[in-house]
Amino acid sequence: MSSATTKTATWVAADWGTSHLRLWPMDAEGSPLTRIDSDRGMGAIAQEDYESVLIAELEPYLPTSGCLTVVVCGMAGSRQGWAEAPYAATPCSPPSIAAATKVATVDARLSVHILPGVKQIAPADVMRGEETQIAGVLAANPDLDGVICLPGTHTKWACVSGGRINRFATFMSGEAFHLISTESVLRHTVAEDGWDDDAFAQGCEIARKDPAALLSAMFSLRAEALLADLSPVASRARLSGLLVGAEIEAARPSWSGRSVIIVGENGMASAYAAALSQQGADATIANAEETTLAGLRAAHAHLNQEV
Amino acid sequence: MSSATTKTATWVAADWGTSHLRLWPMDAEGSPLTRIDSDRGMGAIAQEDYESVLIAELEPYLPTSGCLTVVVCGMAGSRQGWAEAPYAATPCSPPSIAAATKVATVDARLSVHILPGVKQIAPADVMRGEETQIAGVLAANPDLDGVICLPGTHTKWACVSGGRINRFATFMSGEAFHLISTESVLRHTVAEDGWDDDAFAQGCEIARKDPAALLSAMFSLRAEALLADLSPVASRARLSGLLVGAEIEAARPSWSGRSVIIVGENGMASAYAAALSQQGADATIANAEETTLAGLRAAHAHLNQEV
Repeated sequence: MSSATTKTATWVAADWGTSHLRLWPMDAEGSPLTRIDSDRGMGAIAQEDYESVLIAELEPYLPTSGCLTVVVCGMAGSRQGWAEAPYAATPCSPPSIAAATKVATVDARLSVHILPGVKQIAPADVMRGEETQIAGVLAANPDLDGVICLPGTHTKWACVSGGRINRFATFMSGEAFHLISTESVLRHTVAEDGWDDDAFAQGCEIARKDPAALLSAMFSLRAEALLADLSPVASRARLSGLLVGAEIEAARPSWSGRSVIIVGENGMASAYAAALSQQGADATIANAEETTLAGLRAAHAHLNQEV
Repeated sequence: MSSATTKTATWVAADWGTSHLRLWPMDAEGSPLTRIDSDRGMGAIAQEDYESVLIAELEPYLPTSGCLTVVVCGMAGSRQGWAEAPYAATPCSPPSIAAATKVATVDARLSVHILPGVKQIAPADVMRGEETQIAGVLAANPDLDGVICLPGTHTKWACVSGGRINRFATFMSGEAFHLISTESVLRHTVAEDGWDDDAFAQGCEIARKDPAALLSAMFSLRAEALLADLSPVASRARLSGLLVGAEIEAARPSWSGRSVIIVGENGMASAYAAALSQQGADATIANAEETTLAGLRAAHAHLNQEV
């Protein structure tokens, strides 16, 4: 076997978001041969660049004859992305590959399918990418009657049952944490990194008791630093706890008495799990990358059935 | 009378904040001769510059003999300001001139008194400048048993009775509005200016019903712009309504069934009044500049009594 043979991919799974592009060329058994990470996300490239970016990243895997199927989730399917993949509306199953947008490429070696996002009319909400992670959770838990929490810049809480997304809500908690900790008066008070489990739990508890007072509890961090030398690391963890605690309180009707699966890979997934368990909820964590791959794999499997 | 005579001030009222310096040279009847506005706030000058800044601004009013009393409120009294005026602790009356810090000046023509701020130990909170506005409200309403709302970057709600500040809370709503509307994903959705009373009222009502979901209702603005062409001006007013509505809900125990006086001079004071009246509260608006002057005037009057 030549070395070229080791580069034979049967298809490619792709997560193309605002700030990143991740590609997993897959072997015949549906396992990733490798993971390609790029910063050529939607925010960094123009509409006409998508195809050339993909070819540059996948060059070693492109076939000499026939074409390579690429199944894409994420913001590449938005109006400002590569090609619009119109939203499915809740209540709905995570959109199947049949609803994907097939992109016209100049290079015949590519067959690109972009999966749709999901929208909710009232309260208005949208997701792009998370629906594929939800599909990944449902592939492993087809009978799940519960809520899937996807922490991030814009954290999603999706209520699922019978294989469908019934409703969902997006919280700007991650983005608010970033802005408040680096741009507001709290920038003098909040450490750039570091963690304190107790301070996080304290923040969650303060928010649970009075979630409406979130923006007052935040200012109190500044005052406590001035008056009682609250440490920057404790302040950071408490701020995170306030935001996550208010979110969990708002989402209470969704998770109370039901199964919770948190999709995440870093400390935030553990923090959400800790905060939920503090409230008596039983949350399990699913690895984010594996969940994305499971969702893209399910879509690809349906594509093959259709062919 | 020479033209110099028209510049005779008996004393000077001063509001020296983070981003501004305002000076009101006063006539013998306690009316301002003029208002001097400067951008030489605490954030723009070093500790050793305060005296020279004051002399430069007040030069035309400095006496040829004797000295000019300047009564200062605001951040100039913080540890990072001109000279620290230690906080009074709640419950307390707004600090009197007896508690002021007398600043040592090189120029003998100045006699500068900086009024203390007020702190609260639990929940930790601080104010500097607003306590003087509260003193101004109490000068006009000595028997007030109610709450004073001071909208701003960091809005204060102070519960007063018997001439004392019993407790207070600071909400970062103004700063959060600025950061979320200009730096978050909502920057694509929220107009830079413009107003819509109905959208503001709608935001207040959404927040009243579910104040914990503030950061989700915010994301919904983005989604509604994508899905239903919510206008940027309506989005701006709704965002403001969400923040003010959550704040009013959190402050409900303070204002419910009690008198509310809002200290403000711009559209935000009217917006708070509208939001409170939507909840059946009876709020009156006191002009911010007049209220500051009334507080500084009361302090100056006590200074004269002490002399």
